[in-house]
Amino acid sequence: MAKHDFKKEALALHKKLGGKIGIAPRATVKTPNDLSRLYTPGVGAVASHLAKHKDQTRDYTMQGRMIAIISDGSAVLGLGNIGPEGALPVMEGKAVLFKSFANVDAFPLVLSTQDTDEVVETILHIAPTFGGINLEDIAAPRCFEIEARLKKKLSIPVFHDDQHGTAIAVLAGLLNAFYVAKKKLKQARIVIVGAGAAGTAIAKLLHQYGVKDIVMVDRSGIIEKRRAKLSLHKKELAKLTNPRGLKGDLSTAVQGADAIVGVSGPERISAADISSMATDPIVFALANPIPEIMPNEARKGGARIIATGRSDFQNQLNNSLVFPGVFRGVLDNRVTNITDGMKIRAAEKLAAVVKNPTAHAFMPSSFDKKVVPAVASAIRLG
Amino acid sequence: MAKHDFKKEALALHKKLGGKIGIAPRATVKTPNDLSRLYTPGVGAVASHLAKHKDQTRDYTMQGRMIAIISDGSAVLGLGNIGPEGALPVMEGKAVLFKSFANVDAFPLVLSTQDTDEVVETILHIAPTFGGINLEDIAAPRCFEIEARLKKKLSIPVFHDDQHGTAIAVLAGLLNAFYVAKKKLKQARIVIVGAGAAGTAIAKLLHQYGVKDIVMVDRSGIIEKRRAKLSLHKKELAKLTNPRGLKGDLSTAVQGADAIVGVSGPERISAADISSMATDPIVFALANPIPEIMPNEARKGGARIIATGRSDFQNQLNNSLVFPGVFRGVLDNRVTNITDGMKIRAAEKLAAVVKNPTAHAFMPSSFDKKVVPAVASAIRLG
Repeated sequence: MAKHDFKKEALALHKKLGGKIGIAPRATVKTPNDLSRLYTPGVGAVASHLAKHKDQTRDYTMQGRMIAIISDGSAVLGLGNIGPEGALPVMEGKAVLFKSFANVDAFPLVLSTQDTDEVVETILHIAPTFGGINLEDIAAPRCFEIEARLKKKLSIPVFHDDQHGTAIAVLAGLLNAFYVAKKKLKQARIVIVGAGAAGTAIAKLLHQYGVKDIVMVDRSGIIEKRRAKLSLHKKELAKLTNPRGLKGDLSTAVQGADAIVGVSGPERISAADISSMATDPIVFALANPIPEIMPNEARKGGARIIATGRSDFQNQLNNSLVFPGVFRGVLDNRVTNITDGMKIRAAEKLAAVVKNPTAHAFMPSSFDKKVVPAVASAIRLG
Repeated sequence: MAKHDFKKEALALHKKLGGKIGIAPRATVKTPNDLSRLYTPGVGAVASHLAKHKDQTRDYTMQGRMIAIISDGSAVLGLGNIGPEGALPVMEGKAVLFKSFANVDAFPLVLSTQDTDEVVETILHIAPTFGGINLEDIAAPRCFEIEARLKKKLSIPVFHDDQHGTAIAVLAGLLNAFYVAKKKLKQARIVIVGAGAAGTAIAKLLHQYGVKDIVMVDRSGIIEKRRAKLSLHKKELAKLTNPRGLKGDLSTAVQGADAIVGVSGPERISAADISSMATDPIVFALANPIPEIMPNEARKGGARIIATGRSDFQNQLNNSLVFPGVFRGVLDNRVTNITDGMKIRAAEKLAAVVKNPTAHAFMPSSFDKKVVPAVASAIRLG
């Protein structure tokens, strides 16, 4: 079976490579003169200069080109809390994509702590090395506090990709899917299944974009103000969402909905759920590797506009469409804070890469050379 | 003047480069199949495997090939406490040398804290990413505690290069210098000027090697057991050194000495000091860029066996002879702890690279292709 082969092939390839990234000097050291310019004594002049002019560090060092990819291994892919060792090959994979897709130099750091304070302190302490921080695979709700505290204290951008990369990709996908369905996104009813890092960020970005009727569903059902035992971050979500005060489970939420976005786990949505949606329902089933509903099942329920996270189905919706361009823009435009406005523009630019969206092809490919420049162009002030 | 030009050239080159290192993927991503093997879904198999078999992480990830170069910017070159921004171009320079000389992938991290506890905690938290830790340009005496605490808690090697890289290079230099002088190192009287990171490590390594009569001199004069206000680490040095119980200043210490090793600051040693030494005195004046005594002055005092840290004089003695090979050995031989025995063997192997040491040429060149394999061969168990 093909899936089993990919596992075997991936293990063998990783063992053969023994690490997917290395360091590339940007200048050669072949003579004592090279040494004197790149290292001692010449570098002393650069060191003295930067000690006096700290704000020029990014002009003279890798600080202006290097992104940190940081994970505590607490929510890796669909595998959960597997720790820093398990997280490392995934973060290396991201570093490979950063370089291959956007020529962004990014370095993985995996942490031996999952304590919120320690994660924050560690990142603050290594921050002078970098031009931006990509947080990755950190479990909700800790990821929200970690990001918020870092953003407050650092003057470089901090971007939790599981949240915002996914949210940008989903907004881009919805823009094109609604174009195909000939409906208006802002007037639509949207159901989000899953209220972790991705679901939360999608809800917030859609709200910022102007979508009025968002309903979120987690394991305990529809998120609603008066529901018992709501955590702090879900209370916040309850304020932004569910304007009709729905209570109940997924089957209640989806009735009459224009689109459903799954960022939860395998097989949470049924064909019957899809049948109860509005005409021409839009289905994004993004759980990996097994989606909330398989495309064939969704079609049985009457859907024709479908996206998943997988490369073996049409319309792959994946944050690898987003993060390379976001940090290309951060570095090129010297952005210190990635705003909601930039994220919305990035989604619009990404959507516009597909010239004539159809039900079969409304998402661009990660390999499309227009994707990175489109996203990067949105990550700038004004 | 040539020196001024190097400064200008170095500044211009650094600004042009905008960072001296980048990230090099070790595999290309050109097709969706590449993506599936190097990133999702294939990498999930590697992540799951490593979650279960943490000890295999170095076989499947960059952990087996990547060294961290870490500085808090508290003692950078001869410039002192200039902070992380000033330290960064120096650490990048080291990363370039690691790769160019020994094909070792090493990544700089500069820290925004100089608090001992915070430095230790930060390094412990990022440690799962790396196969070894090169501490750099951290001021004494904090460097001793930081290294000791990290060595106790980590199962990867921790090597403070300002200490041990310098000590290995000095021992190698002394082995060849004593061969040229036709004297026995173990029976010699050696004076060390400077009791910071380098001086302390040199004293300890020479003591381990078997040198019986070492006298250390700091700003307050000869280090001696009963001297008032000795710090903890100097009390420890007082136990290993000064067997004749000398008191006084540098001029007392050097009388009859066979070798003097300066790791302090500019112009601390005079020609008259050299004249008071034993016959055929050995002078290592390693302060950079201005040595403790200029070679011409040392010659006036009667020395002919002279080394400095500078590339424009003969016999350059620099830890760039050592650190690339040490970490090549660490990675190749999967060393978890760099012992004194390994350091002594590394010095012997490094000295032996020079086939026929003479007063004019007893140090090997950093560009000699035999240097790295020689040092690396010593960094292994047994």
